[in-house]
Amino acid sequence: MSLGEIETPTLLVDLDAFENNLKQMVTDTIGTNTSIRPHSKAHKCPVIALRQISLGAAGICCQTVGEAEVMVKSGVSDVLVTNEVVDERKLRRLTALGKDATIGVCVDHPTGVKSLDDAAVANGTQIDVLIEVNVGGDRCGVDVGDSLLSIADQITRSRHLRFRGLQAYQGKAQHLRQYQERKAAIEHSTRIARSAVELLARHGTPCEIVSGGGTGTYPFEVGSGLYNEVQPGSYIFMDGDYQLNCHKTGAAGGCFQQSLFVYTQVISLPRRGTAVVDAGLKAMAFDSGMPTISDMPSVHYRGPSDEHGILDTGYAACGLELGAKLKLIPGHCDPTANLYDHYVVIRGDRVEAAWPITARGY
Amino acid sequence: MSLGEIETPTLLVDLDAFENNLKQMVTDTIGTNTSIRPHSKAHKCPVIALRQISLGAAGICCQTVGEAEVMVKSGVSDVLVTNEVVDERKLRRLTALGKDATIGVCVDHPTGVKSLDDAAVANGTQIDVLIEVNVGGDRCGVDVGDSLLSIADQITRSRHLRFRGLQAYQGKAQHLRQYQERKAAIEHSTRIARSAVELLARHGTPCEIVSGGGTGTYPFEVGSGLYNEVQPGSYIFMDGDYQLNCHKTGAAGGCFQQSLFVYTQVISLPRRGTAVVDAGLKAMAFDSGMPTISDMPSVHYRGPSDEHGILDTGYAACGLELGAKLKLIPGHCDPTANLYDHYVVIRGDRVEAAWPITARGY
Repeated sequence: MSLGEIETPTLLVDLDAFENNLKQMVTDTIGTNTSIRPHSKAHKCPVIALRQISLGAAGICCQTVGEAEVMVKSGVSDVLVTNEVVDERKLRRLTALGKDATIGVCVDHPTGVKSLDDAAVANGTQIDVLIEVNVGGDRCGVDVGDSLLSIADQITRSRHLRFRGLQAYQGKAQHLRQYQERKAAIEHSTRIARSAVELLARHGTPCEIVSGGGTGTYPFEVGSGLYNEVQPGSYIFMDGDYQLNCHKTGAAGGCFQQSLFVYTQVISLPRRGTAVVDAGLKAMAFDSGMPTISDMPSVHYRGPSDEHGILDTGYAACGLELGAKLKLIPGHCDPTANLYDHYVVIRGDRVEAAWPITARGY
Repeated sequence: MSLGEIETPTLLVDLDAFENNLKQMVTDTIGTNTSIRPHSKAHKCPVIALRQISLGAAGICCQTVGEAEVMVKSGVSDVLVTNEVVDERKLRRLTALGKDATIGVCVDHPTGVKSLDDAAVANGTQIDVLIEVNVGGDRCGVDVGDSLLSIADQITRSRHLRFRGLQAYQGKAQHLRQYQERKAAIEHSTRIARSAVELLARHGTPCEIVSGGGTGTYPFEVGSGLYNEVQPGSYIFMDGDYQLNCHKTGAAGGCFQQSLFVYTQVISLPRRGTAVVDAGLKAMAFDSGMPTISDMPSVHYRGPSDEHGILDTGYAACGLELGAKLKLIPGHCDPTANLYDHYVVIRGDRVEAAWPITARGY
């Protein structure tokens, strides 16, 4: 099948760009002491997770228990849930996965540790635990101090939990525009994480793992001398927001190509200078702004409604006849992928495969 | 099952409020010459469409061919696609539905009319056609003039198309905050639609149907003396944005209750005054702003990331312990419903059913 035969709106993955991105991340960590544990929340697709593992990833990250279940069922043998799980039913499901795979999860509260241990006991499994430390993202995570020590102590005393180290991810830093801003943010995160490691070491609790870093900052974590695992997700796809980082900063985090597109069709040409396409609020995420149109920099997307977007075409009438199909670059890849049931995978203009987004909705 | 046992994030429908809303819309049109053709793009759920029809809806609206297929397969016998369809494959699928149901669709371009007729000929079906007129929404639709006449003429000359009238929907007017603004916008739309009807009548092409109106404006279309079909969708659920309309304007469009909620759980209490919940960019739409927290007006949601939202709790620590579950009111209902595979339907704190969102992703 050729690309032009595909109905819209559809989520496309350009295989050449995607494979370039997978290899680039491997290249960027070769010869370092840092493992790649890619984040599957970006793609929710076991086909992609298994490709990442085949290229040397230590395991994968998930954000939800449902994602972890899908990944383990699909043959992924090492999953870290980079999030707090506190619901009893979810904890029972998560700890049950420990029978089939190495399962890790984050904690930041003594009640959560107790519930996790209870669930692991009930399932007769051993669960790896990272304490999430607030390294500047100001979302979840404990501060470095007594509560960190008491949670670590609680974990080491739990017979079904294994203390492995720290989750020290700085989400806010990923999208800082300037190279120097991102570098400074991760230097700050590294100082906090290091002080946590040292505090725990002084109390006889060594950290085997310090994990963090995303597509926007991983070169800094890799170079920190402290982090030994990075968790990038978006690098496989890229998006409008991450492209803004790249353009202004050069190399670091900037060698990835756009591989994810929303394929859309012109369904109306109501006025001169205006085209209406069939991709709106249900076809992509808008939290990071409007999409751009691939290969048509002078055409601007605006005014999305549920199933429509308006293109200000200016003089670019060429290629925008009724029925024309275009590739949009979404502002934010993760919540865009979450809208679809599969990726249509293309090489040039040839459709090569459909990869199910199995963990969507879990 | 009780509500507290439901895992998060989940989409809830409060049945009492939902049923009130269904009845309210019927009440608001009784004794008028206006039929209700509810828009299924809001819910994408055949269970709901069939309930709307059982209460007297003339048929339903869909926005995509995939939605129409799902609805016809589920037993809906009268579907209007309130959108332009120009893709040949989609037109073949749409016109094939004419074997099992009354199918209508909108057009605004001669090329689209030709493709539609070709597809209807190939399937041996008859398709109802509304010409979409731009009544101030400035999205799709022709202006009143020669192109309107020539498209109408083209339709009446097509043996497999039946000219039925006008699609005269003003999407932008739905969310104007003030009653008077919305009233003025629909008076303007009505003038344009009336001039189209009169122009066509003078040329011997009577309009049997003038369709339009949504949750924000339907009282004006109902009272216009011109529109004889309204297309409200969101009234069944309501959302944060439509609630802003209600609060400022009193009765018109303001008698609906919030029935749609995103159920979420507190997964972290990292700092005094802050709680983190598990519903973020993948759990609801943010194009119309942040969600509010049901029954907790002093607590504010901010800073959504993919799977997290941050609550500024102020002094409202009560009810926000680790693991607590809350009901969020999303800013925009349609793209929020589009994220889920089913509604969990509750009456009070009791789970009554799960309704599949069958047309999601089509």
